[in-house]
Amino acid sequence: MGKEIEGVNKKISGETKLRVRYAETDKMGVVYHSNFLIWFEVGRVELLRQCGFDYREMEKKDNCHLPVVDLKIRYKAPAQYDDEIVVRTDLKRMSASLLHFSYEVFRESDRTLLATGETMHIVVDSKLVRTSLPEKYMKAFRDLTFHDPTFCDPTKNS
Amino acid sequence: MGKEIEGVNKKISGETKLRVRYAETDKMGVVYHSNFLIWFEVGRVELLRQCGFDYREMEKKDNCHLPVVDLKIRYKAPAQYDDEIVVRTDLKRMSASLLHFSYEVFRESDRTLLATGETMHIVVDSKLVRTSLPEKYMKAFRDLTFHDPTFCDPTKNS
Amino acid sequence: MGKEIEGVNKKISGETKLRVRYAETDKMGVVYHSNFLIWFEVGRVELLRQCGFDYREMEKKDNCHLPVVDLKIRYKAPAQYDDEIVVRTDLKRMSASLLHFSYEVFRESDRTLLATGETMHIVVDSKLVRTSLPEKYMKAFRDLTFHDPTFCDPTKNS
Amino acid sequence: MGKEIEGVNKKISGETKLRVRYAETDKMGVVYHSNFLIWFEVGRVELLRQCGFDYREMEKKDNCHLPVVDLKIRYKAPAQYDDEIVVRTDLKRMSASLLHFSYEVFRESDRTLLATGETMHIVVDSKLVRTSLPEKYMKAFRDLTFHDPTFCDPTKNS
Repeated sequence: MGKEIEGVNKKISGETKLRVRYAETDKMGVVYHSNFLIWFEVGRVELLRQCGFDYREMEKKDNCHLPVVDLKIRYKAPAQYDDEIVVRTDLKRMSASLLHFSYEVFRESDRTLLATGETMHIVVDSKLVRTSLPEKYMKAFRDLTFHDPTFCDPTKNS
Repeated sequence: MGKEIEGVNKKISGETKLRVRYAETDKMGVVYHSNFLIWFEVGRVELLRQCGFDYREMEKKDNCHLPVVDLKIRYKAPAQYDDEIVVRTDLKRMSASLLHFSYEVFRESDRTLLATGETMHIVVDSKLVRTSLPEKYMKAFRDLTFHDPTFCDPTKNS
Repeated sequence: MGKEIEGVNKKISGETKLRVRYAETDKMGVVYHSNFLIWFEVGRVELLRQCGFDYREMEKKDNCHLPVVDLKIRYKAPAQYDDEIVVRTDLKRMSASLLHFSYEVFRESDRTLLATGETMHIVVDSKLVRTSLPEKYMKAFRDLTFHDPTFCDPTKNS
Repeated sequence: MGKEIEGVNKKISGETKLRVRYAETDKMGVVYHSNFLIWFEVGRVELLRQCGFDYREMEKKDNCHLPVVDLKIRYKAPAQYDDEIVVRTDLKRMSASLLHFSYEVFRESDRTLLATGETMHIVVDSKLVRTSLPEKYMKAFRDLTFHDPTFCDPTKNS
């Protein structure tokens, strides 16, 4: 669901905020680049929470884990110490076995775009063996995007 | 220099080793994915050192910094605590203003490929303003790959 | 100022909240212990902000940095992924050249005490040479604790 | 066993080396202080390895984990990017339920002492319930320090 289809579906997206920690900076005086991946994680987990899901419970009760298998990030501008950061996360596509998120990271004060990125996740159990998202998650995401029949298709175990 | 041109040039590549730290693991029991980016950095800096360059001196004496502007990574298999890891780094292409590295991360014991990735870097000064690599670096890299006229071309400020 | 002297002075203390990130956990399934130091830093910076000071500006405009020179921490109970954490920070004592903070880290949900600690900081400039806090900071902290003549004594350059 | 008793026992101590990573620095231009705790962990694990123990196996096969419960560190001098670091680790005292390590962190080039510290560890199982070190570890450490009857005393479950 890279682009929103007008009047037809709803994007599953959300924003979360955080503040740059001193520990996240490096000797260049700006945020060390790998920390953006941790911010993506924060954005992703908060998006799931906004959709009604608690990733901690998903791991504990449903034995479903979502490791990253593919990641891209483009850095546009440096993040500075103590900046308030907005992470905008979109769930672009999902099936019972694969989730695809995209991200935009902004400095809040002037809404400068700092980075964009994407992550792909598979579904595994605690032994790291591939499994499927329980139907309750699939149904919930379908309900959230009910007008878009292609958005999440539980019959396709991509 | 994505592919080696037979009998014509030399790849600028190198390997470095490290051991997975407890701090790098997460509650899934494997290495948290953002740590691979730090390992890429270790591989890159060691490759520069093997080429005769000290990145610390490049920053301090030449006021040249190489921030990551674009990054891709594909995770193939999990890295485990205490694994000995090999990072193979290739300098794929460079100009006076842009460097392109690729990486392969292996578990040393069974040579399992854990991840592959690429990073693009621009050259900036300590104020984060774009600048060019001093000619001594360009010459050195040209000498290391002397048979390949296309590898690093100081006239192209890409 | 470990204990508040009734009717005489005010403690300089504050609370800040954060949520445990996946990246902060380790393979034991709980937060890796060094992350508590980063949370102390978050607590300390927010306490300064609550006192009217912006540590970023202190570094940039006043060329004052506060590196940790001594640190103690006692771990009482593990922090879990996704826990909401409260960091309570107290400024225990300060002079123009030395600051002493103490910390209590709680899980918010059940107010379990997870860790206690202390940090000592010296004041240095950007060259890491010892310097003194500008009088404006000393005055402000004196005003905040105005009834306690021993709390911060700018004549003692301890 | 803070001090060696001449002619009577052997200290259990060892050294390990590492190189400062860019990711470990902060905007003050030096290593962020919490990274020293990770280096302590590296030193501790290598000391156990030098004693014939593999901490990974201790966790996996013996279900023994050694979380830090108490930690002190004194910072003497900053560590710089790309410095080669020596971590000297001593096992100061142990029982079947408690281990006490001390550390000295040096810059290798000029043997400057950068930090000293101590950690206390309890022994827990994977559920974080207190347990005891298997007798094989106790015996091995007794053998390594065989002349010192007070060093590790398996009858004292401190």
